[in-house]
Amino acid sequence: MGEFELIARLCADLPQSRRTILGVGDDCAVLAASRHQQVITIDSMVEGVHFRLNWTTPEELGARALAVNLSDVAAMGATPTFCVINLAIRPGLEAAFFDQLYAGLRQTARNEQVDIVGGNITRADQFAITITLLGEAQAGIMRRDRARPGDHIYVTGTLGDAALGLRLLDRKVKARGAARDFLIDRFLRPTARIAAGRKRARIKPAPAAIDISDGLWQDLGHILERSGVGAEIELRAIPLSPAYCVVKGDDPELALTGGEDYELLFCTKAMFSNSALAKKLGVQVTRIGRIVATKGARLLDDGHPVADLTQRLSGWDQLRSVRK
Amino acid sequence: MGEFELIARLCADLPQSRRTILGVGDDCAVLAASRHQQVITIDSMVEGVHFRLNWTTPEELGARALAVNLSDVAAMGATPTFCVINLAIRPGLEAAFFDQLYAGLRQTARNEQVDIVGGNITRADQFAITITLLGEAQAGIMRRDRARPGDHIYVTGTLGDAALGLRLLDRKVKARGAARDFLIDRFLRPTARIAAGRKRARIKPAPAAIDISDGLWQDLGHILERSGVGAEIELRAIPLSPAYCVVKGDDPELALTGGEDYELLFCTKAMFSNSALAKKLGVQVTRIGRIVATKGARLLDDGHPVADLTQRLSGWDQLRSVRK
Repeated sequence: MGEFELIARLCADLPQSRRTILGVGDDCAVLAASRHQQVITIDSMVEGVHFRLNWTTPEELGARALAVNLSDVAAMGATPTFCVINLAIRPGLEAAFFDQLYAGLRQTARNEQVDIVGGNITRADQFAITITLLGEAQAGIMRRDRARPGDHIYVTGTLGDAALGLRLLDRKVKARGAARDFLIDRFLRPTARIAAGRKRARIKPAPAAIDISDGLWQDLGHILERSGVGAEIELRAIPLSPAYCVVKGDDPELALTGGEDYELLFCTKAMFSNSALAKKLGVQVTRIGRIVATKGARLLDDGHPVADLTQRLSGWDQLRSVRK
Repeated sequence: MGEFELIARLCADLPQSRRTILGVGDDCAVLAASRHQQVITIDSMVEGVHFRLNWTTPEELGARALAVNLSDVAAMGATPTFCVINLAIRPGLEAAFFDQLYAGLRQTARNEQVDIVGGNITRADQFAITITLLGEAQAGIMRRDRARPGDHIYVTGTLGDAALGLRLLDRKVKARGAARDFLIDRFLRPTARIAAGRKRARIKPAPAAIDISDGLWQDLGHILERSGVGAEIELRAIPLSPAYCVVKGDDPELALTGGEDYELLFCTKAMFSNSALAKKLGVQVTRIGRIVATKGARLLDDGHPVADLTQRLSGWDQLRSVRK
């Protein structure tokens, strides 16, 4: 099957909203005008780098490829609208595989009311999915460069679960039963916090925000760098899931460094309790620290500096950048 | 150098218009609202599939990667506005290579007033550039499905040059001097017909149109299929460059089948002579045939059917799809 036939097959009868004037099948898709500001992001998942096919079903992979982009739009407080998808396909993958991949993509797109309006297929030696996602900023925009000293730092959900799930799949860590299933599910089927991001952006002033894709420590670092501030993080406040604690006890290190949770981190003046904020956003929210004027991130244990772990994490972060 | 450092380096001080509210460096870029319909396209170039690094400078490669997308926007009659770029980088490519690649991208973006608003870098075994380009439809939209019996078929520029240039680089064909330089240049440095496309879209009614990326025969086929019509093409009318004729004489077969010229094909009622239309669009324009009700494309030589070449091309087209 040629690339043209495959894309025609995958994109047949894509569900589309009235915002899509012309979908797949022309030189470009045509999108209705909008009076809102737009957001745009591009992300790519490469076989052997970001996933292995024996870890995941094609449906999960398709859903995850879109979720990773949805999380970027969630972090801006925007509503996802349109996406275009580039598949680099290698020999050995059959049409049925792509049907299933697209079934996952379609389902996630449908759930989040995203129109898939463009597709392109190219041959390659390595399988990769690259997605560009657009969104509409209907309320405020949450940016990385808006954190100010005195802001409190919040995260949604629990952290470190996906990193543990990946280590379970990779057989670097062992667990069984419900904890194992929960952690692997958190890695393979992340949920972008779109509704929570949008709801938070509507409460003025819009906070600084980022999605936690590379790990709390590294993503917090992006906020601090862009905002020109520092942070103090209370180790014991970092939200850990019961499944995480089954495997790791109360050691928060992987929750600090592990990526792929796709939770949101935001920094804002204290206006609500954790529980009041959770109710407003429809998701667990935990205050984990505060923004300070002195640059750099520091860990605290019950208010006291934890110099050794702070130093190790900072070294790890820089080392990681060099190695990559 | 890590992916994050490389993207920061490549995207430093990108020229941006006032339409860009927030560029590279956050979870998403933020784009100003627009009262126009938008167009969007995604395309990818993979090393070893679409290009070889010993054929081309990194600057040319960057410029070409964007030009391929610009051509899709040109074919809609739209004005390009924003792009986001995904680089899959393999071991062995140095930072200086990417600096030069981005120099080519930046220059083309600047020439066409496109803002580069997003970048992503991922590791891979194979180098690839994937670009999503947005555009604004300020006048009419040119679609593939609007060709009607009685329409005349026009192409811009000359055809087959890029395919000959590729064969020269590949040493499948020989030529020297100015003809060689011209043909290779047409392959390595294509110019998207943005101004011509936009100007043509402004003349009502907007014609059916497509860009000639896969070859006249195949791209005409897309127009015919989407519009549910057929075409008669006058062999002797197909515009050949002097350089093409130096190598191929008056044999138009490669001009019919060879891709990558990035000229425009459009179908519309006869309103102007070739020369009047050329003057309006600012580019050479040639009438090469007409749309008919009977499906399929047929070649004519001075009005008489050329059944053998027609049959060969149709067979070639189908074979190509199966082989790919």
